Amino acid sequence: MAVYTDVSFEELNSLLADYDIGEPQTFKGIAEGVENSNFYLQTDRGAYILTLYEKRVHAEDLPYFLGLMTHLAEHGIACPLPVRSKSGAYSTELRGRPAALLTFLNGVSLRKPEVENCRAAGDALARVHAASKNFALKRKNALSLAGWQSLAEQTREKASTVQSDLEKLILETLSELSAWPHDLPEGVIHADLFPDNVLFLDGKVSGLIDFYFACNDALAYDIAIMLNAWCFEGDGAFNMTKSKALLSAYQARRSLTKKEIEALPLLARGAALRFLLTRLYDWLNPDPSAFVRPKDPRDYIKRLRFHRNIQTAAEYGL
Amino acid sequence: MAVYTDVSFEELNSLLADYDIGEPQTFKGIAEGVENSNFYLQTDRGAYILTLYEKRVHAEDLPYFLGLMTHLAEHGIACPLPVRSKSGAYSTELRGRPAALLTFLNGVSLRKPEVENCRAAGDALARVHAASKNFALKRKNALSLAGWQSLAEQTREKASTVQSDLEKLILETLSELSAWPHDLPEGVIHADLFPDNVLFLDGKVSGLIDFYFACNDALAYDIAIMLNAWCFEGDGAFNMTKSKALLSAYQARRSLTKKEIEALPLLARGAALRFLLTRLYDWLNPDPSAFVRPKDPRDYIKRLRFHRNIQTAAEYGL
Repeated sequence: MAVYTDVSFEELNSLLADYDIGEPQTFKGIAEGVENSNFYLQTDRGAYILTLYEKRVHAEDLPYFLGLMTHLAEHGIACPLPVRSKSGAYSTELRGRPAALLTFLNGVSLRKPEVENCRAAGDALARVHAASKNFALKRKNALSLAGWQSLAEQTREKASTVQSDLEKLILETLSELSAWPHDLPEGVIHADLFPDNVLFLDGKVSGLIDFYFACNDALAYDIAIMLNAWCFEGDGAFNMTKSKALLSAYQARRSLTKKEIEALPLLARGAALRFLLTRLYDWLNPDPSAFVRPKDPRDYIKRLRFHRNIQTAAEYGL
Repeated sequence: MAVYTDVSFEELNSLLADYDIGEPQTFKGIAEGVENSNFYLQTDRGAYILTLYEKRVHAEDLPYFLGLMTHLAEHGIACPLPVRSKSGAYSTELRGRPAALLTFLNGVSLRKPEVENCRAAGDALARVHAASKNFALKRKNALSLAGWQSLAEQTREKASTVQSDLEKLILETLSELSAWPHDLPEGVIHADLFPDNVLFLDGKVSGLIDFYFACNDALAYDIAIMLNAWCFEGDGAFNMTKSKALLSAYQARRSLTKKEIEALPLLARGAALRFLLTRLYDWLNPDPSAFVRPKDPRDYIKRLRFHRNIQTAAEYGL
């Protein structure tokens, strides 16, 4: 759920004076993502999303995010396309926040993706990695090893209130991750391609959304994130059929290198830790003005414990 | 903002098996009303709202609300039309809550309605009053005098934390309202026709929504609610041009009786007190799970003080 900042129709209307997208017919705050305020806008010419970027998305990163979506859309990826204002700007300001208008994509996100959905999502990720190859801008991953160490510091004191040995689990994992590989093929990664962010229509991927964690990092880390997000059941059990489907669909477009395959268990551990830590932080520091229920970090404790018992990528079905 | 209960696409899909409205293309939680959970649903055949009725709307009142919308739509009012299931049911159950599917109406609600919007809204109210004349079901107004007395009791202790003499204002008003008239023309009233609930398209009313306070009561009380909701500026000043426009548009369809005109100042006071009390209650008893910022009750303190100085309906421009 996310509408932190309210926008009146009158405010919308004065914003639209700068755009050439027709007359508004419907304008509603919607539950889309958790970091920003989002509005569904329908005009006589089409459907759009108005996004107001709240504190976790920084204005200086917008050229990267909006430029990436433009680049991907131009290279055949179904993702929101930033709409330029009459003066050519990709972003604007509303209620004191950076804001952008993007095209709206039809499709629904799945709570419980099936094997075929995992296959389609793996294929979609490989297509993003290929399509972003020549994207000129760069952005460091703000939520990589150093970020995790800092989050671990900020949460360690209260971690035991969630699970008694959680602090130990986090510290041990961080220490294992000192072996984090730095020589894997890099490129633009989505970094948050959860089922929430993949839209389906008639069983096919109709859109990829929420590129606001995108950055340059190891491509295989993006896969590791998806193994965590797509291949575990509600009870926390790993589903190798889903994992095989996702990985083989990805590899049909780009074969993983030997180093990537060897690194996968460690990358999966890192990805589990990343979402464990951000969820733990939000769980321990709920923002009363956020209108968002923090996600339970315990799902990712389970996943992390699973990955720590993995010896080789073969156990993921590779 | 209102999505109290989350609904997954999979849950939606099993619900849709009971309906003949096509295949879902978009499904999003939206900020619509404050009492219920609402979702925007687009299928290949049209746009719909899925509403889950939360605690303030009781299942036993749904036949009245849904029946009224059906009756009004059949009599030319642009309001959401409840969609019947394959077995003919107007409502269903989802996640343990009563739920209904209704047609979605295009249009935007205005934060700052202009004089012409007030005129259109007054006309729309008169049309609702006329169209509901033969609606067979009855529902008592749960938020009339007795309800106000109870809310006053529940808020009086802490009322002074909002404004020092607020308890006195409320008690004095309640005592004046013992003269509340009981012999005015009655019918179905919307009882909450705020600008939020009137959709405009190209300057014309395109839809009326949120009938979940509708009940049988004095028709002129519905007008008194609208005087409060539409005819005051952001700074709390009464705008008689707007009031005149609203009242004359209403009267073009139904002339107020002498008794209604005489009663208007008292009805307006009652309407101001009603919204003051419910806002005060929500302000003093915020629901942390509600994901809704309570509305500031002070706007209605100002309005109530204004109405207490009114001697005759002429001061509203009648």
